[in-house]
Amino acid sequence: MLEKRTPIPVTEAIERVMKYAGEGEAETVRLEEAYGRYLAEELRADHDVPPFDRSPYDGFAIRAVDSAQANLDNPVEFEVIETIGAGQVATKAVKPFQAVRIMTGAQIPAGCDAVVMLELAKQYERDGKTYMSIKRPFRPGDNISFQGEDAKKGDALVPKGTRINPGVQALLATFGYAKVKVARKPRIGIFATGSELLDVSDPLVPGKIRNSNAYMIQAQVVRSGAEPIYFGKLMDDLDTCFAAIQSALDQVDMLITTGGVSVGDYDYLPIIYKRLGAEVLFNKVAMRPGSVTTVAHLDGKLLFGLSGNPSACYVGYELFVRPVVRTRLFSTKPYLKKATAMLMADFPKPNPFTRFVRSYVALEDGRLTVAPVGMDKSNIVTSLARANALMVLPGGTRGFAKGDTVEVWLLEDEEGSDV
Amino acid sequence: MLEKRTPIPVTEAIERVMKYAGEGEAETVRLEEAYGRYLAEELRADHDVPPFDRSPYDGFAIRAVDSAQANLDNPVEFEVIETIGAGQVATKAVKPFQAVRIMTGAQIPAGCDAVVMLELAKQYERDGKTYMSIKRPFRPGDNISFQGEDAKKGDALVPKGTRINPGVQALLATFGYAKVKVARKPRIGIFATGSELLDVSDPLVPGKIRNSNAYMIQAQVVRSGAEPIYFGKLMDDLDTCFAAIQSALDQVDMLITTGGVSVGDYDYLPIIYKRLGAEVLFNKVAMRPGSVTTVAHLDGKLLFGLSGNPSACYVGYELFVRPVVRTRLFSTKPYLKKATAMLMADFPKPNPFTRFVRSYVALEDGRLTVAPVGMDKSNIVTSLARANALMVLPGGTRGFAKGDTVEVWLLEDEEGSDV
Repeated sequence: MLEKRTPIPVTEAIERVMKYAGEGEAETVRLEEAYGRYLAEELRADHDVPPFDRSPYDGFAIRAVDSAQANLDNPVEFEVIETIGAGQVATKAVKPFQAVRIMTGAQIPAGCDAVVMLELAKQYERDGKTYMSIKRPFRPGDNISFQGEDAKKGDALVPKGTRINPGVQALLATFGYAKVKVARKPRIGIFATGSELLDVSDPLVPGKIRNSNAYMIQAQVVRSGAEPIYFGKLMDDLDTCFAAIQSALDQVDMLITTGGVSVGDYDYLPIIYKRLGAEVLFNKVAMRPGSVTTVAHLDGKLLFGLSGNPSACYVGYELFVRPVVRTRLFSTKPYLKKATAMLMADFPKPNPFTRFVRSYVALEDGRLTVAPVGMDKSNIVTSLARANALMVLPGGTRGFAKGDTVEVWLLEDEEGSDV
Repeated sequence: MLEKRTPIPVTEAIERVMKYAGEGEAETVRLEEAYGRYLAEELRADHDVPPFDRSPYDGFAIRAVDSAQANLDNPVEFEVIETIGAGQVATKAVKPFQAVRIMTGAQIPAGCDAVVMLELAKQYERDGKTYMSIKRPFRPGDNISFQGEDAKKGDALVPKGTRINPGVQALLATFGYAKVKVARKPRIGIFATGSELLDVSDPLVPGKIRNSNAYMIQAQVVRSGAEPIYFGKLMDDLDTCFAAIQSALDQVDMLITTGGVSVGDYDYLPIIYKRLGAEVLFNKVAMRPGSVTTVAHLDGKLLFGLSGNPSACYVGYELFVRPVVRTRLFSTKPYLKKATAMLMADFPKPNPFTRFVRSYVALEDGRLTVAPVGMDKSNIVTSLARANALMVLPGGTRGFAKGDTVEVWLLEDEEGSDV
């Protein structure tokens, strides 16, 4: 009755899963809907930026050579022959000692090669004409933003797989991407298992608890960039479970079940994997929590059997599912971002297994510190709400002490890591 | 023609805006839609967690006293009288040297006070009855998760204003929040101004550029937790502008315009504020970029006149609009998170104004480093895509050198700061 399982190291488990991570697919969305999505192709400049020599200030465009003799005692006068706003183009040729009143962003008139900032010029009228005078010389190129100085047409500006942030959104608009090729969100099916689970709106009854994993996982799926499809609770009947899982697999890119993977008498998933003909990649990992995490593979689809324990379920998602999702979003950094931090608490008890401790990292004087949130018994749920990192304590014969440097994996970071 | 404006310090500008930040409003959403929203009330436990004494492991529930004499040479035998799964409740009274086979999460049977993990027991059949034996004693309380040890009924577990992350989502489910009171997203109207602006799908023509600010700002609005409503481009006709702004104000909680606030001849917004009867809180700030940022107030609504320059527009949003949005999402930390970082580049030129430099912060050996992205000329847009922080260089007579400690404001952080 009691199946013997051999735990494998965490890194090996992740490697086995990532072999089947698969490829992303592209879809096209309108620019207005692109924020938060992931680029399915690199973003290229369709024109020089700036697209023409332009003025970065309100002022007067002049020929620098005419200003050469200007100084405090010898103001040089220019006739203002025209005024152009942003978006307008000068219509007149500028002759010696003539100037064009120019607004921020407007194209430098032909013949001009410098801009005098408005506050450095004195403007006045005489005989129905407009003049301005300056008391210092300007060099060719002064106060001009040159065509292409920011980006050249054809430049690859943002790599494929980048999450579209407000700055990327601005670039997409600048370069005419009214429609944007983004990664299609992988569809992830979710089943909860466990006859002890009540619906959220159910009143509590003796021996039962409300189903929290399904909602937690849906949020994790969204955070990682995928689309959750919740299929509900699996009943404790093997044939019903099997039919439900088989039918769900047709509708999704990968499938998560929570619970049902330990060696308890009511845990059907190992049997179901077998009946499906799925290849079990592993069914025990040398880690806490989540040692009973099982991952199987069938016809290009991954089946994640996460623990029913909330913390183990949470950690299992971030370790094994997230990197698959991010790979399909074309990321070259699909893993949680890793950093080192100073430990702010003692962990005196050694543990043979690698521990992933729900933790809170903070920045103090420019340095990262980390402290566990809650007691870290694997069955408590409240601490997950405050966790922004997993602290990774390698298994072994020693404990850890306050002040030690430890590795942390950041949960809310968007950038990721390539290892 | 040239209006004289007096710049005020950044902190004073922010203070003046925040005086009119206003109050948040609550709305109710289904739990499935709650991820990423902000709690409009504190999350309270509606029951003890665990709701009953329960087993954290698969194993056998026993009376600890019966195991007192067990050791390697003297295994103690228990008759297994019943098996209960998670969600089931024991039906029989447990007498001396009897045990109940119990699954993870199941309620401890009355009379039992310890759980023997499955792998520590030897199970066997004899005369049609099931037995198990153990070779070590257990103390009362061993391997039991006690009712209420994680949370007590009525405990406030997560404060109002918290962003709902996957862990909070799990808690909401656990405590029966099938519907969740969250902050209503403030509606933010957006107008772009500038006759030089083309639509994203327009081909480039001489002197014009595509409108990128409107898309960038919409993404910033979403990132900060609000809802953008883009009203399009304002034309260069004063009466049309005025009518459009007046009508938009009726539909939104606050209004953003990009461009039209500098002292150029075509900048109408100061006139429009006057005609609306809006109180201008300031129209010049001692900062770079974004010195011409204007904020006005009318009947409880803020009007943000951001610069048309993309970088200044971006910075203006994060400095002045974001904290108002977060305040209305019930956050007590509405400002961008502040940290210190080691500067990785020289800024030798002193500047009288506080500079907000688009930057990239990285974690190296547990310490924060910061480097500017791009050349930081205020008219370039490409650098915004890579920025994850604003580096704050206070105005004054000195430059900054590589290795200096500087302040950074983190753009992608969700936690915020109370100052």
